[in-house]
Amino acid sequence: MSQYTPPLQDMQFVLNELADLHEIAALPGYGEATPDLARAVLEEAGVFASEVIAPLNHSGDIEGVRLEGGAPRMPAGWAQAYARFVEAGWPALSAPEEQGGQNLPGVLAAAVEEMWNSGSVAFGLLSLLSRGAVNVLRHAGSPELQQRYLPRMVSGEWTGTMVLTEPQAGCLSAVRTRATRAADGSYRLHGTKIFITYGDHDLVPNVVHLVLARVEGAPAGTKGISLFAVPKVLVNEDGSLGEHNDVRAVSIERKLGLHATPTCVMAFGDGAGAVGYLVGEENRGLEYMFIMMNSARFAVGLEGIGLAERAYQKARAYARERVQGVEQGGETSAKVAIIRHPDVRRMLLSMKSRIEAMRALAAVMAASMDQAALNQDPEVRDAHQAFVELMMPVAKGWFTETGLDIASMGIQVHGGVGFIEETGAAQYLRDARITTIYEGTTGIQAMDLVGRKIGRDGGRAIGAVIVRMRQVQADLESHAHAELRAIGAQLNKGIGDLEAAVESLVKSWEGGPKPALAGSGPFLELLGIVAAGWQMGRAALAADRLLASDPGSDFLTYKILTCRFYGDHVLSKSAGLRHAIVSGSGATLEFSDAAF
Amino acid sequence: MSQYTPPLQDMQFVLNELADLHEIAALPGYGEATPDLARAVLEEAGVFASEVIAPLNHSGDIEGVRLEGGAPRMPAGWAQAYARFVEAGWPALSAPEEQGGQNLPGVLAAAVEEMWNSGSVAFGLLSLLSRGAVNVLRHAGSPELQQRYLPRMVSGEWTGTMVLTEPQAGCLSAVRTRATRAADGSYRLHGTKIFITYGDHDLVPNVVHLVLARVEGAPAGTKGISLFAVPKVLVNEDGSLGEHNDVRAVSIERKLGLHATPTCVMAFGDGAGAVGYLVGEENRGLEYMFIMMNSARFAVGLEGIGLAERAYQKARAYARERVQGVEQGGETSAKVAIIRHPDVRRMLLSMKSRIEAMRALAAVMAASMDQAALNQDPEVRDAHQAFVELMMPVAKGWFTETGLDIASMGIQVHGGVGFIEETGAAQYLRDARITTIYEGTTGIQAMDLVGRKIGRDGGRAIGAVIVRMRQVQADLESHAHAELRAIGAQLNKGIGDLEAAVESLVKSWEGGPKPALAGSGPFLELLGIVAAGWQMGRAALAADRLLASDPGSDFLTYKILTCRFYGDHVLSKSAGLRHAIVSGSGATLEFSDAAF
Repeated sequence: MSQYTPPLQDMQFVLNELADLHEIAALPGYGEATPDLARAVLEEAGVFASEVIAPLNHSGDIEGVRLEGGAPRMPAGWAQAYARFVEAGWPALSAPEEQGGQNLPGVLAAAVEEMWNSGSVAFGLLSLLSRGAVNVLRHAGSPELQQRYLPRMVSGEWTGTMVLTEPQAGCLSAVRTRATRAADGSYRLHGTKIFITYGDHDLVPNVVHLVLARVEGAPAGTKGISLFAVPKVLVNEDGSLGEHNDVRAVSIERKLGLHATPTCVMAFGDGAGAVGYLVGEENRGLEYMFIMMNSARFAVGLEGIGLAERAYQKARAYARERVQGVEQGGETSAKVAIIRHPDVRRMLLSMKSRIEAMRALAAVMAASMDQAALNQDPEVRDAHQAFVELMMPVAKGWFTETGLDIASMGIQVHGGVGFIEETGAAQYLRDARITTIYEGTTGIQAMDLVGRKIGRDGGRAIGAVIVRMRQVQADLESHAHAELRAIGAQLNKGIGDLEAAVESLVKSWEGGPKPALAGSGPFLELLGIVAAGWQMGRAALAADRLLASDPGSDFLTYKILTCRFYGDHVLSKSAGLRHAIVSGSGATLEFSDAAF
Repeated sequence: MSQYTPPLQDMQFVLNELADLHEIAALPGYGEATPDLARAVLEEAGVFASEVIAPLNHSGDIEGVRLEGGAPRMPAGWAQAYARFVEAGWPALSAPEEQGGQNLPGVLAAAVEEMWNSGSVAFGLLSLLSRGAVNVLRHAGSPELQQRYLPRMVSGEWTGTMVLTEPQAGCLSAVRTRATRAADGSYRLHGTKIFITYGDHDLVPNVVHLVLARVEGAPAGTKGISLFAVPKVLVNEDGSLGEHNDVRAVSIERKLGLHATPTCVMAFGDGAGAVGYLVGEENRGLEYMFIMMNSARFAVGLEGIGLAERAYQKARAYARERVQGVEQGGETSAKVAIIRHPDVRRMLLSMKSRIEAMRALAAVMAASMDQAALNQDPEVRDAHQAFVELMMPVAKGWFTETGLDIASMGIQVHGGVGFIEETGAAQYLRDARITTIYEGTTGIQAMDLVGRKIGRDGGRAIGAVIVRMRQVQADLESHAHAELRAIGAQLNKGIGDLEAAVESLVKSWEGGPKPALAGSGPFLELLGIVAAGWQMGRAALAADRLLASDPGSDFLTYKILTCRFYGDHVLSKSAGLRHAIVSGSGATLEFSDAAF
């Protein structure tokens, strides 16, 4: 099946030139994160992703997960691969040393996660969810809970889940699962949950579920929801595994994609009740769950990038190998590989340029998360935090929408064979199709962006980002190199459209949220395009600077051309989006529900 | 599963107000095609599509086609439905009376075909291909061939195929299947063909393959390819079925979508050779096959519309039924159906407005095909033919790309349940994914458009269309109704961008095809958006006019609002596309193959 070649050169360029890894290495505890260490970690992760994970992706899709004897059975080879993943210490890469982690910066971990996702999103999801569960327990779990569960969750020996949705409703406020206090201070849970990713599987001996439930007598609505840790297998005081808890996977969903990921309907408390341990305080469950969801949202954005990179590589390989037609305007009538056809080149560059733009923006965001957590200066921390919160809907929403489009384009490059499942290109589209939905749909992200991050904020946070964008644009437009000036001109238009859109949204917000929300989808796309274009502008400047000492570098030369393509083909969409945001909400809101 | 409600009101509006059905009814032989007859045919077809075909779509997808005892076995219920389809005379709707047809205009048949595709593209494909085969035999088949095969192919008792592709290459010039002359004037074929849609099935007793092959001693390349009619079962002189021919389905492809369509690898002449009858003259096979491909291209465009309509209806039903969240800026804290959320409304209107725009453009094209075939005035015929040829790549390329996007958006409206196969929304995306590929990829369409229809033509044909667009824009901009003026303003910008793009392409074409071809993909989209926007402008004018005598019509009122939405959210993309066409080819062409 298709090979995966880790994009190490671009990742190092992004880390060193755009995400300022040297500044991250100056943060407390991150002193070891030198460029050399980063390179070594990326190389090692690249070997693991390409040699161990990537080969499982297609076979896992074909075999899928089956419920056997009441337990999901993972596809062939997955257990061995996951055991090697744990043995190599990958799940603990960015965890603190005192919990058995390697304490590497998040910015490096993000690049590594992109590779797991390129290898296989179905595989990467398991550690993604476990990291989220670890974060919640670390933040809100009692010392006893932490001591008993965290070490083996951090190491990956046990995995974690997020257990939210119930059959009757998608609103969290409608949670009906009951939790009853037991004499020993634990609780007994009863309820059915759906869409539980890796809810049960045979890769590890224990799964720790973080379950939303309602304690008897709790207030109605979202303020009466608590969070419980519910292990699949009870853990004795000495840490050994005890009895099976009253928890089981009832069925596995038949999904469009992610066939190797068990998405379970879970029954808690079919019998005497599932033993659960309260996380934090009663009735604060949603607050804790949001910790998990926030980290998961960024991680799902990285799924968009990882999938897109894999789809791109497969399309590129096919375009180089597949001979069809003669070159239009070429000098001979010999048949050529389809990469010589202009429209195929355009599709490949559309994929490549957007992937590199997303990777750059993701790295800059991840670096800001590290700064927001560890910088000594509270003002610097706050500024980074504001940037991260503003951009999070873009990372979740725009990276995944773009990844979905790129996966579909990958099939298109293949032509007819792309529609045949054996080829493997179709799987990327099927897998990508959930990324714009889970952990909050693109529409939910857009509402969060326009409502909380722009409207209620009065546009302050984004104003600070636009100042930074304008500086890059000025550097580009005053540059000696014509390609860079052209990129600067497109960035200038994009920023202008963004400013006009923000002004319109902030103004309309004062009169009520509806018009702004009617433009929220196009605005999320606009901010994504312009923010990633800003990073492509920085990339072009950095590449030009580095070319002075490395004039023969193809990587740097074509990086500038990739940025130019991005400006002409992606940033150029900003005018249309601006119009839809500023003038397009009337029809949307005036339409009667019956007239659709 | 999901219901399908034929969009009869919009179809009649389009036929009567935009496609000028009364002028078609004035053409020779079409006198019966009055609005009343059209309404009756649409209603009857709507009943068949919704009650007989639509219920088979999801079950057919789940069951799929299996090879049993060397023959593909269709899913349960398909044979009965197809028998009723033939019995009701639907395959012969637009065929001439002397061949047993009903001789109804193509513009009416196109609306009916949209409904078959909404019911099930997998089902509609069978008669689509048969009609293509009929067209070729009618045009190029000998009287004997016509007499023996046409009547039962026209009626649908037997079906037809297009047999082009071979395992070793996608270029038609590389056809290797051999045809040897036999003593009785027939030929014996030997070769393997792939991707043969409905290559074999158990719905009818005979399948007539139109096969490209090379007669011994023929010239190399495309000029040595002939076309043969190769029946699955030989037909005796008295018309009865004789022996099974040396033709069989070797395997069925496992595809992303269209699971109910048998896509076969076919072996011709495993034994003594498959008996084939030359169609037309030797070595003119490609010319005849293009007759089939041209009609098939428009028909595949209709698949894009039909699929999009079905996906829209399903998303709309879900959005009305699914209660989640409170209305932002609403007056109560009650939970509401998600159709109340602005971004969901935006998605639904994005789907609806583009479907209605495509339907209008398709009908206008189909009417032009009728005019090009039958108008008494040769100048009028030529003008219509030039319009049809110009727009055909848009019908094939843009309708299907738009349909694909709409099918994907339909999943998005569903959220998580859209990813579950049982829901049925995912199937529309899987099925739509081939429509941008088969019968010539979007890239091939774009190359045809920019090369043959714009570049070599020097922009004359499109210039004539732009004059017609400008008239509609002028009527809109001078209108008393502000909504119509707003639509006119967007159309004006769109036409301006189209003119600039055409000028740039025509100019650059003189220096060689590459820069224009590098912009061909965006140009196909731009022409699609603006041409369909032109029809939406006409729709708004017609709706406004009709409102004078029917002021309470919700259909007409919301038609104008739908056109307004199209202007603000779809036509507004024109500026970005123009930039990509005019300025975006440099990076595409300068990139080195190795640097991707």
